[in-house]
Amino acid sequence: MSSKTNRQILFVKRPEGLPDDRTFQMTEAPVPVPEQGEVLVRTVYLSVDPYMRGRMNDTKSYVPPFPLNEVIVGGVVGQVEDSKHPDFHPGDLVTGMMGWQDYSVVKGEELRRVDPSRVPPSTALGVLGMPGLTAYFGLLDIGTPKKGETVVVSGAAGAVGTVVGQIAKLKGCRVVGIAGSEEKVRFLKSELGFDAVINYKNQDVKQALKEACPDGVDIYFDNVGGEISDHVIARINDFARIVICGQIALYNLEKPDLAPRIEPLLLMKRVKMQGFIVSDYQNRYQEGLTHLSEWVAEGKIKYRENIVEGLENTPEAFLGLFRGENLGKQLVKVSEIQT
Amino acid sequence: MSSKTNRQILFVKRPEGLPDDRTFQMTEAPVPVPEQGEVLVRTVYLSVDPYMRGRMNDTKSYVPPFPLNEVIVGGVVGQVEDSKHPDFHPGDLVTGMMGWQDYSVVKGEELRRVDPSRVPPSTALGVLGMPGLTAYFGLLDIGTPKKGETVVVSGAAGAVGTVVGQIAKLKGCRVVGIAGSEEKVRFLKSELGFDAVINYKNQDVKQALKEACPDGVDIYFDNVGGEISDHVIARINDFARIVICGQIALYNLEKPDLAPRIEPLLLMKRVKMQGFIVSDYQNRYQEGLTHLSEWVAEGKIKYRENIVEGLENTPEAFLGLFRGENLGKQLVKVSEIQT
Repeated sequence: MSSKTNRQILFVKRPEGLPDDRTFQMTEAPVPVPEQGEVLVRTVYLSVDPYMRGRMNDTKSYVPPFPLNEVIVGGVVGQVEDSKHPDFHPGDLVTGMMGWQDYSVVKGEELRRVDPSRVPPSTALGVLGMPGLTAYFGLLDIGTPKKGETVVVSGAAGAVGTVVGQIAKLKGCRVVGIAGSEEKVRFLKSELGFDAVINYKNQDVKQALKEACPDGVDIYFDNVGGEISDHVIARINDFARIVICGQIALYNLEKPDLAPRIEPLLLMKRVKMQGFIVSDYQNRYQEGLTHLSEWVAEGKIKYRENIVEGLENTPEAFLGLFRGENLGKQLVKVSEIQT
Repeated sequence: MSSKTNRQILFVKRPEGLPDDRTFQMTEAPVPVPEQGEVLVRTVYLSVDPYMRGRMNDTKSYVPPFPLNEVIVGGVVGQVEDSKHPDFHPGDLVTGMMGWQDYSVVKGEELRRVDPSRVPPSTALGVLGMPGLTAYFGLLDIGTPKKGETVVVSGAAGAVGTVVGQIAKLKGCRVVGIAGSEEKVRFLKSELGFDAVINYKNQDVKQALKEACPDGVDIYFDNVGGEISDHVIARINDFARIVICGQIALYNLEKPDLAPRIEPLLLMKRVKMQGFIVSDYQNRYQEGLTHLSEWVAEGKIKYRENIVEGLENTPEAFLGLFRGENLGKQLVKVSEIQT
């Protein structure tokens, strides 16, 4: 073990606006050795997620900011190389918060075993992981969809949006997606069964929403924020629910975006607008995973992954999220599963 | 009857910005005669309420706009002069939606009897009417106060705010009011038992909130909107509830006020922001009135009325709401109760 090196991507400079080359630095370190109760995990898949942009700012938030000059922490599916914890053995597939590096040492309690027998292990970072659970709790708990209602989801082709739309269909809703390429539009319509999909890059969103939502909008599941959201919210119905899940359009702004205050509209239409974070539902993860796994196994929820190869390409894959390059869950493949 | 005249205040011009002399016109008409099922009511008290400003705009809302050249409709407590409905008799005190005039003819089904034996009949327009019910359902149903939480209420000295603060105290909360005069501050603190009150006209609201809410804000009951709300929301806690009840600071703006988008904060702090209208709770009014009446009878909820005399002074009393002149419920006394 000690002859191998551990490539690591460090967070070296807080970005103003969009992160770039100066934000990250690749380095090499010895492969760490687990102590009692710990496990050495080789990274197989890394997750890059929009929320990580928030941790790059030095502001108080629900998760502490990334410290400078340390490895960037994120979700990983990996394989146990060495274990000093009784529940894990070499070769086991596991998932947990590790980081942008080849090898991580983690406490056994912070790992969850991944069962590769029914679905690919990478799904533990997507449809059967944080993004899937985000869609599940956000839509069902805050959105409370009822049969026949119209649900609009922005960032519709992303890891969360694809699951939101499909759960809404399962609940008998009319589902309208907003996405940023013709490929995404086709995929959401023909493969996932969305009722309508708007390409915000080449359509007049306002007009397209009017056509796609003849009865207004009952639930808006918002992954993006900004002007796209303004157009959706302008068509909101009385007693609508706006689920604030992400605001990717705003994460890289250097100064805040000004807009007309939304409170008068929320009042007039008696709308509920609520932000949430998936980890608030931690004590219900098992419920969510049980339902999502069933739906995936039955083919009722489909998923797509966008996989980039090589640890060194992680920053690019992360930045691609903000250019809307991913269809489905964006992953980085760092090593092969060894059987 | 026919020898008397019915003074009426008509709505003759939609205001841009603050209403003024050109908005209203006083006229005289014959006293109307009730037909089968109808009741003739002499106005004793008129209610002027901030929400009425919304009906002066020609925009689709939860209540239709006031039609031009008709009597302005609003809440009234009055006395039956003549009745062609079996449930009502001359001399009865009643309340309902009537208008800015001396006499109204109303369907019996649209009237509710007022019992003057325990509390003054004018309370049917305030603490035991729409404003009291607004406070009750908004705070309890949307705000969901828990013991020990901090509740901030803006427009604290108004008809709704005074009741919100007192119910919050009954629920064991720390209550901080925001109001616009030293008289209001004294009243809220010494008579209603608010824990702290900020005078936004002569205090630095941001700094004062910091001192008044050392543990942040769990519930914000918003009657005013605008910059005052910005300061409160900046101190909001995780999982806070923002109850949008009124936005009086914005009602008379000629163009919308721009502000940084609030969605990122709602997301980061997992806040629920919800607008509501008291009439959405119509099927629970009896529940609300039962509790409010008990609290008033037991002296647990106190109320104050600001009474202007004379129908002709109704427009001025209405405009006074936007200058923050009223402490408690603003009423216009139009005639005496005859016994």
